[in-house]
Amino acid sequence: MAKMIYAGKAKQLWTTDDDQLLRVVYTNQATALNGKRKDQISGKGKLNNEISTLVFKYLAQNGIPTHFVKKISATEELVKKVSIIPLEVVTRNIGAGHFAARFGVKEGLRLAVPVEELYYKSDELDDPFMNESQVYALKVAIPAEIKQIWQLSRQVNQLLTPLFASLGLQLVDFKLEFGRTADGQIILADEFSPDNCRLWDLKTKQHMDKDVFRRELGDLADVYSEVLRRLASKLGE
Amino acid sequence: MAKMIYAGKAKQLWTTDDDQLLRVVYTNQATALNGKRKDQISGKGKLNNEISTLVFKYLAQNGIPTHFVKKISATEELVKKVSIIPLEVVTRNIGAGHFAARFGVKEGLRLAVPVEELYYKSDELDDPFMNESQVYALKVAIPAEIKQIWQLSRQVNQLLTPLFASLGLQLVDFKLEFGRTADGQIILADEFSPDNCRLWDLKTKQHMDKDVFRRELGDLADVYSEVLRRLASKLGE
Repeated sequence: MAKMIYAGKAKQLWTTDDDQLLRVVYTNQATALNGKRKDQISGKGKLNNEISTLVFKYLAQNGIPTHFVKKISATEELVKKVSIIPLEVVTRNIGAGHFAARFGVKEGLRLAVPVEELYYKSDELDDPFMNESQVYALKVAIPAEIKQIWQLSRQVNQLLTPLFASLGLQLVDFKLEFGRTADGQIILADEFSPDNCRLWDLKTKQHMDKDVFRRELGDLADVYSEVLRRLASKLGE
Repeated sequence: MAKMIYAGKAKQLWTTDDDQLLRVVYTNQATALNGKRKDQISGKGKLNNEISTLVFKYLAQNGIPTHFVKKISATEELVKKVSIIPLEVVTRNIGAGHFAARFGVKEGLRLAVPVEELYYKSDELDDPFMNESQVYALKVAIPAEIKQIWQLSRQVNQLLTPLFASLGLQLVDFKLEFGRTADGQIILADEFSPDNCRLWDLKTKQHMDKDVFRRELGDLADVYSEVLRRLASKLGE
C-alpha cells in the first residue's frame, strides 16, 4: 500500500508499487517566513505541477538529467526515487530578497557574475547558509558531487534565463535540489515553479512569483496562471 | 601631525611621519556580541601586542608576508600601510562557537577537513557570512586574491597548529585579515591574539581565549598572560 514518506511545505511524496518510483502530490499550501505564515491557495498545486512539468521536460530535452518521469494527474507526477542531497542550491542573477538585505544592496542589482549559494536543509536549524568547505567538513556531500551540482545548475541557468526572457520574464534567482540515484549519478530533483524562483516581468517589473504571497502584493494564483500561460504558449504540447 | 585613521573594537590606527607606515595602538577594550557588550580589561592591550608580535615574527621567519614592522612600545607597533580587504578570514580545525550552533554540532567536533569561511567586514550589516561567488559578484576581491588569501591562511594554520600544540594548546579556530600593498601584493595584516582565535588547553580543556570574556569564565588577563608565557618560553628573545 502507498505510504507517505515526506510531507514538505507544498508537496507530499508517496511510495508506489514500483520501488524505483515515487508519486509527488502538489498541495495548495503556501508558506512564508520559513513556515511561520501559512495559507491555502486554491489552484496552486495544479499550477505548480503544470509549470514544473513543462520546465522539467524542457530541461530533460536539453540534456539535464532529472527525476521527472511523467505527470499523472492535475496535481500529481511520477518521479524517480533518489537520495536527496540535503542542500538548497541557489543561483542569483540579480540581487533580491534575503541577499539584498544581507549585503545592503538595492533589490534589482545586476550581479557582476551569478551568485551561487548552498543552504543546509534543516527545519530545526532554519536552513543555514553553508559554504563548500563546511559541506565537506560536515560530510554533507563530496567535492565531486558539488562540482557536478554546480555544472548542472549553470546549465539550468543558461537554459532558463533565455527561455524566460523570451516570455518577457527576468529570471532573478532560483533554488534547485539534487539527488543521488542508486548508481551514484547526480540528477535534478524537487520542482521548478514560481514557489522556488523569482521572475520579474521585463516590462512592468511586476513580481510573478511567490513574493506576491510573501509581500502580499496580490493574487498568487492569478500570477502563477500568467506564468503558466506564457510557458505553455512556447512549450505546451 | 599624527592622525587617527581607524578606531576598531580593540585597536586604533594612526598615521606616522612616514606615509608607508602606520602606528597600531592596542587598547584595553574587550567587546562581545558584536560590540553590544564592552569592558575595559587592564593589561589586555599590552598582552595582545606582545602575543601578536611574537606570532607575526614567527610567521615572517617562516615565509608569510605580513604588515608587521616592529613593536615600538608596550602597547604600540609599527606596521606597513596596506589597503585592507574587507573580509574576516576564518579557519576552523574544531567546531566551536557560532559554527557549532549554526550547524547543530557539538562544540569540540574534530572537522574532517578545516572549515574556511569569509565574513564581510561591515558593522552596520553585522559582518555577514559570505561565500566566494558573493565576493566576486559584489567585487569585494578578485579570484586571484582569494586564492592567495587561502594559500596564506593554510600556511598559517600549518605553522601555528603545531606551534600551539607544542605549548599544550589546541588551535581550535582563528580569524585573519589581509591587505593589498601599493604594488598589489597580498600580505597578512591585523593581529594574531587570543581575541581572534580559540585556544584550548590540551590537558585541562580550559578556554585560553576571548571566550573567557564572552562566556564569563574567569579573568581574561590571567589567561592571556599564560598564553604569552608559553609563547615567550618558546619564541621569546
